[in-house]
Amino acid sequence: MASRASSEIRTLAGTALAVLAAGALTAAAAPAAPRAPAPKPLTTAEVLAASSPSDWRPLDPQYTLYLELPPGRVIIEMAPVFAPNHVANVTALAREGYFDGLAFMRSQENYVVQFGDAAGKKPLARAQRTLPAEFERPLRGLTLTRITDPDTYAPLVGFLDGFPVAADPQLGRAWLVHCYGMLGAGRDNDVDSGGGTELYVVIGQAPRHLDRNVTLLGRVVRGMELLSVLPRGHGALGFYEGSESGMPIRSMRLAADLPEAERTALEELRTDTATFAAYVEARRNRHEEWFKVPAGRIDVCNIPVPVRPVAGKSR
Amino acid sequence: MASRASSEIRTLAGTALAVLAAGALTAAAAPAAPRAPAPKPLTTAEVLAASSPSDWRPLDPQYTLYLELPPGRVIIEMAPVFAPNHVANVTALAREGYFDGLAFMRSQENYVVQFGDAAGKKPLARAQRTLPAEFERPLRGLTLTRITDPDTYAPLVGFLDGFPVAADPQLGRAWLVHCYGMLGAGRDNDVDSGGGTELYVVIGQAPRHLDRNVTLLGRVVRGMELLSVLPRGHGALGFYEGSESGMPIRSMRLAADLPEAERTALEELRTDTATFAAYVEARRNRHEEWFKVPAGRIDVCNIPVPVRPVAGKSR
Repeated sequence: MASRASSEIRTLAGTALAVLAAGALTAAAAPAAPRAPAPKPLTTAEVLAASSPSDWRPLDPQYTLYLELPPGRVIIEMAPVFAPNHVANVTALAREGYFDGLAFMRSQENYVVQFGDAAGKKPLARAQRTLPAEFERPLRGLTLTRITDPDTYAPLVGFLDGFPVAADPQLGRAWLVHCYGMLGAGRDNDVDSGGGTELYVVIGQAPRHLDRNVTLLGRVVRGMELLSVLPRGHGALGFYEGSESGMPIRSMRLAADLPEAERTALEELRTDTATFAAYVEARRNRHEEWFKVPAGRIDVCNIPVPVRPVAGKSR
Repeated sequence: MASRASSEIRTLAGTALAVLAAGALTAAAAPAAPRAPAPKPLTTAEVLAASSPSDWRPLDPQYTLYLELPPGRVIIEMAPVFAPNHVANVTALAREGYFDGLAFMRSQENYVVQFGDAAGKKPLARAQRTLPAEFERPLRGLTLTRITDPDTYAPLVGFLDGFPVAADPQLGRAWLVHCYGMLGAGRDNDVDSGGGTELYVVIGQAPRHLDRNVTLLGRVVRGMELLSVLPRGHGALGFYEGSESGMPIRSMRLAADLPEAERTALEELRTDTATFAAYVEARRNRHEEWFKVPAGRIDVCNIPVPVRPVAGKSR
């Protein structure tokens, strides 16, 4: 938790002290609510330490995928509110064992990694190879937690159920945002040529020009550090070529299809809570001693939604 | 060149066609200037293919560093306009061989890698261990190529000599921006506690909250793919701990101190040219066939300044 919330560029010598200090603050903040006349602004670590259990929700196993790789498990939360058909199709692909034994075929610097069936010919049972695009949806019916700082790309940005969202109220449309860790379905030039048999994950500066051009259907909530370090491919667009081979996929499974003992019990900070609002504010204006000039602003892609093991169930 | 300019999320099957098409366009654009009644908007690849030699400038060997690592050479362009004292000090450190035999001590997911003297005790000859901060400078005297789309963090953003820059005209101050690949000098809580003996490079979503909080002094123009894949450290803030060891540094040298035959001859698109403006416009509104909804906006950190080998001198 602390490592996700901490952001200083400090030298190693300074780190031990900082970590100790953060621990001390956390311990102090937990037992008693602040009652000083002018309360000191909280750091992100303090906000999270002071959260209540109801600020968190467990990941829904019906919408959680486990991508099993040789170095470990990558955990993906899917977004049925935005891409219901792609979510259903990728779930069907997982149930068919479609991804098992396939591999990563692309790793493009400061951009994306991509995995699935490079040849596009692996047989399917119930799942579809292509689907109509789900680039955006009606804004109506969605209650976003707004981020009020100006966004370069969209009139309105915010969060819904842990996902970064953009919207255009005039058009009445909303869409998921290409932040770090987002999962999408590759396609060819035809907008309806994707479906989830090739999936990509953002590993660099948010490629916002892709918003509304390709279907996003989830986000990686654990294991990004396994994907972001894949050696870059030397072919066009970072595809592996010649003797290069990408990391193999052991399997991809829906969490609900595994016995509970084999699941990873995680919970996510609810993005519709006062605690999340305080967390965002603490990221807008950093109050850790290291910082000298708080930014006073925050980009929607600079707000990683905290995820942690469920107490007593971590594995 | 093509791989930096290309941005589609396409399936592998579609890639060969796209690369062929891009080649055809490039070949067609080079010999003759367009003279159609309503000229088709250019793609980034077409803009670069149509550039003239005077749109490019060679990297200045006096301000170019070669960080030699086991898998290859990382090339850094320094920014004396923004951090003259840090640039001079890191140059002195390179000349003393300070970095030779040191290592990376930090790799933090979606954030930074850091290298130098973890213990902070390696002896110095002429170089300094700490320097006064160079977080920002007067805006006066700088002629920025403005990026006119709204920026979340600063009233004004643009480019100067290839570097991403932000400014506040009311304050009359300007500063370098923490985009992907930027190089900075780590520090402890004291603002004047850095100096370049520990250097970091941004490997994730632009951490703009660091702007004006730490001294940036350059950017990586080649070799980011060697740094971004360093295994993440398991200690606090991504520092390596226990049995983890970071990639060793063979040497860091000023290009000017090497015989010309050992230098890498690179040139960079001048950011004060009409060609750069056309390149930015082509990134604001992608016209490759794959794209369906041009963004119409661009973030300053989504504009990698093109760098290429000098014709006839590539190595």
